[in-house]
Amino acid sequence: MNIDTICIVGVGLIGGSFAQALKHTGFKGTVVGVVRDKAKGVEATRLGIVDTATTDLKAAASTADVIMLAVPMLSMREQLELIAPVLQAHTIVTDAGSVKKPFEVDARACLPFLNRVVPGHPIAGKEKSGLEAVDPHLYETHRILLTPLKETDNDAIDVVRSLWEQVGGVVETLSAEHLDNALAATSHLPHVLAFAMVDTLASRQEIKEVFRYAAGGFRDFTRIASGETIMWRDICLTNKEPIVEAISEFEAHLATLKKAILDDDADTIGTVFRRAKDARDLHLGIKS
Amino acid sequence: MNIDTICIVGVGLIGGSFAQALKHTGFKGTVVGVVRDKAKGVEATRLGIVDTATTDLKAAASTADVIMLAVPMLSMREQLELIAPVLQAHTIVTDAGSVKKPFEVDARACLPFLNRVVPGHPIAGKEKSGLEAVDPHLYETHRILLTPLKETDNDAIDVVRSLWEQVGGVVETLSAEHLDNALAATSHLPHVLAFAMVDTLASRQEIKEVFRYAAGGFRDFTRIASGETIMWRDICLTNKEPIVEAISEFEAHLATLKKAILDDDADTIGTVFRRAKDARDLHLGIKS
Repeated sequence: MNIDTICIVGVGLIGGSFAQALKHTGFKGTVVGVVRDKAKGVEATRLGIVDTATTDLKAAASTADVIMLAVPMLSMREQLELIAPVLQAHTIVTDAGSVKKPFEVDARACLPFLNRVVPGHPIAGKEKSGLEAVDPHLYETHRILLTPLKETDNDAIDVVRSLWEQVGGVVETLSAEHLDNALAATSHLPHVLAFAMVDTLASRQEIKEVFRYAAGGFRDFTRIASGETIMWRDICLTNKEPIVEAISEFEAHLATLKKAILDDDADTIGTVFRRAKDARDLHLGIKS
Repeated sequence: MNIDTICIVGVGLIGGSFAQALKHTGFKGTVVGVVRDKAKGVEATRLGIVDTATTDLKAAASTADVIMLAVPMLSMREQLELIAPVLQAHTIVTDAGSVKKPFEVDARACLPFLNRVVPGHPIAGKEKSGLEAVDPHLYETHRILLTPLKETDNDAIDVVRSLWEQVGGVVETLSAEHLDNALAATSHLPHVLAFAMVDTLASRQEIKEVFRYAAGGFRDFTRIASGETIMWRDICLTNKEPIVEAISEFEAHLATLKKAILDDDADTIGTVFRRAKDARDLHLGIKS
């Protein structure tokens, strides 16, 4: 299948980096950026992130071979509804949304050709957002997870896989439920905790001092609380059950630790800390 | 006051880095390392971290002008009891312990000359420990907090201040209660949360996968869970009330957020995330 035109909906960190990376790695066709705001499109073109830009999603979608939706989760449905009537039968619809099952549900509700739907999720990101954050190297050596539908054609999966491989990603496929559950633990829970902790400290009267005595560990720990808030709000709303379950598990572990501290129970504190340190050192390496 | 001999008790990350930094920045006297294990002393001397090393704390303390205790909190008392009978009247006793009020309590219980006691706490550290972690640049531009007793002589404070300034630290003084309370929020709470979260994930059956899908944010967020577990256990046991209070505050904020997620309350989630992001960006800067 020849890919002449790729339409990227949303040219922020995720979509813009994918677009620019395709161009930098020799994609010969046209990369069209779909933006809400005309000025942003002009700027994205000037920066060489996309070849052309438009605010007319329907027009862009009607001529695309591949459409990549890179918008916050709660904006997906609206975009899918807009493109549904104009899609060609061969056009592949993929996305970079953070939660996969809700995207699948939306796609099933809106799209005419489910065999061309390839949901995806790159494990990459930064706390910065917008055009300034675009980085054509963002995906190099990063894991890209695809969660095809049971109806999805193999050739559609292959096209999306090869585009991600072209920009340096390492592609795997798995089920949407599986991925949403894993990311609730490894990504969504830490973000919720970081936001909740910074909010806790920010509510203290001595807030300036709190940050004044913050060390490097605090910076690292709270970095993810500088993430894009709409994106993270939408993730919480769309991956609700796995996230709430992960929070509940965490609350139980924290309660155990708090009780051990209250009870001067050195053994329990030491055991929990050691188990956590060993798990992290084993799986992520002590230096990273 | 002439400082001919400085005795550093514990030549791990904190004490060893202080020792080596003094030597690198032109300290003309003798830096004596006190170690538990003879082989470690030989290695510390060979690496140029200290001038000489010994396992005999009493002998080393009896001839020192300044003694720096850099051991985990629950080992402080034992060291103070050992040095108390041999101290000269002019000898300054300082420390780099993570919690200041308990050190003051121990010092009051053990030491004969409270006017020479200068408790201290460097806001610096790494997740690595031991001789390999020693870094003579560790304290450069880092805040060093001293919490003198009401009895402490000004000249003793000045000596400790100038040693820390010599190795690049930025010294401030404040009360022990004040500091313990602030660090419970900015340092001890994040560590407890990171240990609890990694322990939560490590208890999941699919533990390997959990770490497999971990992104950069997860690495940053959990880095502090690779910290020295005995040190952190001792901090929890010695700064118990402020830490438990900080955990309780955090639990309330997390419960609010969890309820908002359960209730699909987009406004509350968005407000909390935005407030946290704004606080962090304002006080620490979005890039750091």
